[in-house]
Amino acid sequence: MKNEFKPRTDLAVEAKEMFVEKNPEKEHELDGIIIREFQEDDVKLTRVEIDEEGSKRVGKSPGEYITLESQKLRELQSNFLNQISTMMAKELSRLIQKHQIPADARCLIVGLGNEYITPDALGPRTMNKTYVNAHLFKLHPESVDEGFRPIAAFTPGVMGMTGIETSDMIFGVTKQSEPDFIIVVDALAARSINRVNATIQMSDTGIHPGSGVGNNRKEVSEATLNVPVFSIGIPTVVDAVTITSDTIDYMLKHFGREISEQDRASKALTPAGMSFGKRKQLKQEDLPDEDTRKKFMGVIGALGEEEKRQLIQEVLHPIGHNLMVTPKEVDEVIEELSKVIANGLNQGLHASINPKNAKDFL
Amino acid sequence: MKNEFKPRTDLAVEAKEMFVEKNPEKEHELDGIIIREFQEDDVKLTRVEIDEEGSKRVGKSPGEYITLESQKLRELQSNFLNQISTMMAKELSRLIQKHQIPADARCLIVGLGNEYITPDALGPRTMNKTYVNAHLFKLHPESVDEGFRPIAAFTPGVMGMTGIETSDMIFGVTKQSEPDFIIVVDALAARSINRVNATIQMSDTGIHPGSGVGNNRKEVSEATLNVPVFSIGIPTVVDAVTITSDTIDYMLKHFGREISEQDRASKALTPAGMSFGKRKQLKQEDLPDEDTRKKFMGVIGALGEEEKRQLIQEVLHPIGHNLMVTPKEVDEVIEELSKVIANGLNQGLHASINPKNAKDFL
Amino acid sequence: MKNEFKPRTDLAVEAKEMFVEKNPEKEHELDGIIIREFQEDDVKLTRVEIDEEGSKRVGKSPGEYITLESQKLRELQSNFLNQISTMMAKELSRLIQKHQIPADARCLIVGLGNEYITPDALGPRTMNKTYVNAHLFKLHPESVDEGFRPIAAFTPGVMGMTGIETSDMIFGVTKQSEPDFIIVVDALAARSINRVNATIQMSDTGIHPGSGVGNNRKEVSEATLNVPVFSIGIPTVVDAVTITSDTIDYMLKHFGREISEQDRASKALTPAGMSFGKRKQLKQEDLPDEDTRKKFMGVIGALGEEEKRQLIQEVLHPIGHNLMVTPKEVDEVIEELSKVIANGLNQGLHASINPKNAKDFL
Amino acid sequence: MKNEFKPRTDLAVEAKEMFVEKNPEKEHELDGIIIREFQEDDVKLTRVEIDEEGSKRVGKSPGEYITLESQKLRELQSNFLNQISTMMAKELSRLIQKHQIPADARCLIVGLGNEYITPDALGPRTMNKTYVNAHLFKLHPESVDEGFRPIAAFTPGVMGMTGIETSDMIFGVTKQSEPDFIIVVDALAARSINRVNATIQMSDTGIHPGSGVGNNRKEVSEATLNVPVFSIGIPTVVDAVTITSDTIDYMLKHFGREISEQDRASKALTPAGMSFGKRKQLKQEDLPDEDTRKKFMGVIGALGEEEKRQLIQEVLHPIGHNLMVTPKEVDEVIEELSKVIANGLNQGLHASINPKNAKDFL
Repeated sequence: MKNEFKPRTDLAVEAKEMFVEKNPEKEHELDGIIIREFQEDDVKLTRVEIDEEGSKRVGKSPGEYITLESQKLRELQSNFLNQISTMMAKELSRLIQKHQIPADARCLIVGLGNEYITPDALGPRTMNKTYVNAHLFKLHPESVDEGFRPIAAFTPGVMGMTGIETSDMIFGVTKQSEPDFIIVVDALAARSINRVNATIQMSDTGIHPGSGVGNNRKEVSEATLNVPVFSIGIPTVVDAVTITSDTIDYMLKHFGREISEQDRASKALTPAGMSFGKRKQLKQEDLPDEDTRKKFMGVIGALGEEEKRQLIQEVLHPIGHNLMVTPKEVDEVIEELSKVIANGLNQGLHASINPKNAKDFL
Repeated sequence: MKNEFKPRTDLAVEAKEMFVEKNPEKEHELDGIIIREFQEDDVKLTRVEIDEEGSKRVGKSPGEYITLESQKLRELQSNFLNQISTMMAKELSRLIQKHQIPADARCLIVGLGNEYITPDALGPRTMNKTYVNAHLFKLHPESVDEGFRPIAAFTPGVMGMTGIETSDMIFGVTKQSEPDFIIVVDALAARSINRVNATIQMSDTGIHPGSGVGNNRKEVSEATLNVPVFSIGIPTVVDAVTITSDTIDYMLKHFGREISEQDRASKALTPAGMSFGKRKQLKQEDLPDEDTRKKFMGVIGALGEEEKRQLIQEVLHPIGHNLMVTPKEVDEVIEELSKVIANGLNQGLHASINPKNAKDFL
Repeated sequence: MKNEFKPRTDLAVEAKEMFVEKNPEKEHELDGIIIREFQEDDVKLTRVEIDEEGSKRVGKSPGEYITLESQKLRELQSNFLNQISTMMAKELSRLIQKHQIPADARCLIVGLGNEYITPDALGPRTMNKTYVNAHLFKLHPESVDEGFRPIAAFTPGVMGMTGIETSDMIFGVTKQSEPDFIIVVDALAARSINRVNATIQMSDTGIHPGSGVGNNRKEVSEATLNVPVFSIGIPTVVDAVTITSDTIDYMLKHFGREISEQDRASKALTPAGMSFGKRKQLKQEDLPDEDTRKKFMGVIGALGEEEKRQLIQEVLHPIGHNLMVTPKEVDEVIEELSKVIANGLNQGLHASINPKNAKDFL
Repeated sequence: MKNEFKPRTDLAVEAKEMFVEKNPEKEHELDGIIIREFQEDDVKLTRVEIDEEGSKRVGKSPGEYITLESQKLRELQSNFLNQISTMMAKELSRLIQKHQIPADARCLIVGLGNEYITPDALGPRTMNKTYVNAHLFKLHPESVDEGFRPIAAFTPGVMGMTGIETSDMIFGVTKQSEPDFIIVVDALAARSINRVNATIQMSDTGIHPGSGVGNNRKEVSEATLNVPVFSIGIPTVVDAVTITSDTIDYMLKHFGREISEQDRASKALTPAGMSFGKRKQLKQEDLPDEDTRKKFMGVIGALGEEEKRQLIQEVLHPIGHNLMVTPKEVDEVIEELSKVIANGLNQGLHASINPKNAKDFL
């Protein structure tokens, strides 16, 4: 059976949003998809579980998808970074236990991406910062304390530099080193501005490069490797289509909000638009009705999300301006976010690493 | 007298466009501004001369502004990069002669920007690649061949790292080293997508950080340093406001083009939209009339350039999404573009460096 | 009056050793030189005060020279590195107070050396890690807490890359930024193997590049800049002459030790050479008498330190093998030692930075 | 049968020298070892062929060992570097043909070493600069011109960072990617000062980490991988033992030369020691007889090479001073020498890459 919808996104949350948008009438029919949301301080945690049926609907592999979202991640303040690392570690630990992987099972961490293109170097940089000890278990087992499991790690590089498909590199090293489970770390492309450098996604479904293209042998998953494959990623790049499309949405919501606030303002004494120092947030319910959208943005305003993106793509692509971009602070961002993931991996994988001693293992 | 218009752009070409747009009735009145355009292969060369009167109109210092524009610059192919370096060198050489600077005058090159933020590192990287020989003139004059002038170079760093204002660093080193003229190299912010990593700008007006703020003592120019100050820059970053605003324009032109092509198609046998392999270009004349713009983009479509930018700014800023971004290939871009400028400087400053021996001096 | 002896060393301790060696009969005559030694855990602290008379004897400028020596520094363990930073901070703080510099006096830190030659990059890397806040005092004084003084910092680069003499860069920036005192940080050449990456030297005498050559205008000191100039350095490179000369000495001491241990062994029950797990140290008193030295090392064994070095130099130089080398772990060494100095500077310069909050300022 | 002598050197030339030294009476018995020397401009080319019998004598695997030696390599001048790349390419090409490897056979290049320790990064840096095209053969065969073979490349990292033995990484990737032959590139330790950064060694015997330790499964060779394995290396580090031992030899030869020149000078009018601008070279025949050696260097002077090294090792090791060092210009050295090898690989592996177009493939 064919997928009903092919997503262009790495994020399950977005895939679901896209599905609902295309099929608004089915919003309550998403039987195969369970979504739970939690808010802890400044971080929104979302767990999406997709079963076989849900998988067919939204075109994502069955399994669990977890996102930790926070605009604060962009500020790169060390206290907050430590805090979100620990939250990531808890979710990772839970995911590992869910798969009944024992505490001494051997893990192979794979740092995907091109080390020489900074926004794509999240995987390799994470690998360099993660605590690696598999060789100690083998060569100096007496030096290993309680509460640690054997961790190996490698960076397969990218095909343009190695001449070898990334999946083949992973297959080869996995067969030789025989880990009990695998974690792949990668920089992702975001499908919305507000997720760039602001979201950590984890899943237990492996990675499916060029998914939808029908090329299963490049899949890096339990199906091809016979051991559980987890993935961890952060969106670090975004294209001009997404920036424009999102901004048009924000403009429509901005108008919608203004209209509804004017309505209320005429009925009350509270001045419109008072925000009391908190950063403003535009929400889905701010989106005005179609007539208003048409008034402000013409036919564009009336288009659905995917139609709008497709139209922008058709305009920008032929003139060569659908740039894939990254925030200019990319050097510091990748340095700090790779530390966040490495820290989260260390705490999530070893019982004896915790927030107190975490920095000794970075 | 107050400037009629305060530009937000480093590029004189853009300042003029903005002026014309705001004052379309004055397009032919720009007496104080002379613009000459040339096309050489894939490169568009524009020379803008602004006198005192023009300066008041467009809010840019009087002087000459030169741009070399080419989308091919983004492809980073070595033959083309060498070619545009030589074109840059010719313009630089002409500009130096225009100021009657003799062939043996001493030059100080200043590489502005933050070396540790890659998209901002164009200046420091250029400095590292430029041929520097002032010490040879002093210590080993016998080793200096004919056709070279003394070049010194330094990177003042950024205030956040030095605690000292960049202009003070330049003043101090200039007073001590007493150059006859100065060239500052810097990464710029672009005000249109199509100029990012695709335009080299030169001028003989120095640099005016925070210009318009009325802070003259930070100006790095002949007025403050008593020697001619040239500037060379490439826009390497762009903000989300610009990306969105430009894309909306492209969309409007796209619709305009489609409409006019349909009209023509109905009158002729030539199929509409045939491009025969060349990259499509959307032009100013493709912009449809206001009614059409309103039909496709509502009230947004009817806004002028500056109103539209201001609106987008007002929407994106409060929600924290007016990201300043750079194309993801930033590492290679800065490496290659700093070589382009260093090569252009070497050829433009020394009579004995030419396209044939240029690579020996990089 | 001419110096009695021209040292080839940056270290005052070594200059004194060289003097005593050449003039053993004057060992007790060093009236102008006061040496105090302290041992704290694994660190040996030496303070050498040289007055005008002493200066003439050993060829070092009058002032105080402080060394912190420890072989443990080479192990790069974070606890020890933090500890030695704090010891350095105390000595720096004492030195500053000795010069009656007030707590709010403005400091300029100068990071000497070539950023692109790793073993020479100690100065620039230190500058990047030091807490800099002079601009905050100027632009946001309200944001500055109690217990901080204004710190500015810059890297003048090296003449081969700037075309400008380093001292001129420092003069220019000093005149413009008007600090109350200056600290220069630099990588040094060691004159003995056991000081490489294992000694921090401080002084209040500024720096005298090419000292002895009679070129005073390149001196960076209170004499040329009118404000106190402190220097901080770590020897990171050593030449083949030094390695060979030191090793020959170690061999002689090794033989001397063996002979005396055999003597004692024949008189006692204690087995010779028992070291009980501590790293062995060879000392000056292990050096055997001249006859023994000649027996083991021929005429070489009988040479004085300087004669021996000169001979080795005469052999290695003409065949091109007097390499200047650095331990192969140079990348990590410079990264960690620059952090040690930055940390020591932060704690030594600001009353409000202490071992507990130090890492927040790195 | 046990090896007669276990070498501590990666260089076959040195292994042979060590054997002859220990067994001077057998110098002419080296039936199983054929040595051919050639001089071309400033480069000395040595080909050593070792058969089974010779292998037993000198403890190196049977096969061919090629060295290209030149002190000029250290000067890093681009013309000479290009020239020695081409010489390396010819030898590599000859070696490949000797093994009857066809022109379209697939090659896997393995860059050994730690990318983050500069003197050890020769392998990874070479890999990054080598022309890689195996993926083009697979995905875009129409884009591949005549005269190219498929090249893949990867860097296995080091066990301390991956937790996986390097040999296992190579086995895994080799099994998966199935190359027809393999080339490993690595930075070596030199056993004499004059080979540091001045010698390129190639062989067709693979690599044998910890050879002599009897651990065959870590061997990367045709025996373990079933395809020919070539190795290319440059010595970039040297220890203090070697520096001292070599310098003592140079001193002895220096004295020997002086004595013989005085003898001749007394018989002739030619002044002793005239060198006419050429760099002096000390040769084996300059070494004086044992009595003279004892006179100048005591018992040390009478020791054989290995005894002397062992003694120095025994002195330096316990006091922690047998530093492994690299010339201080290590950053530029590794950058340029990795380019030399990449250039040599490109020309040696592809019929269509030659000195004229070589730079287009770097």
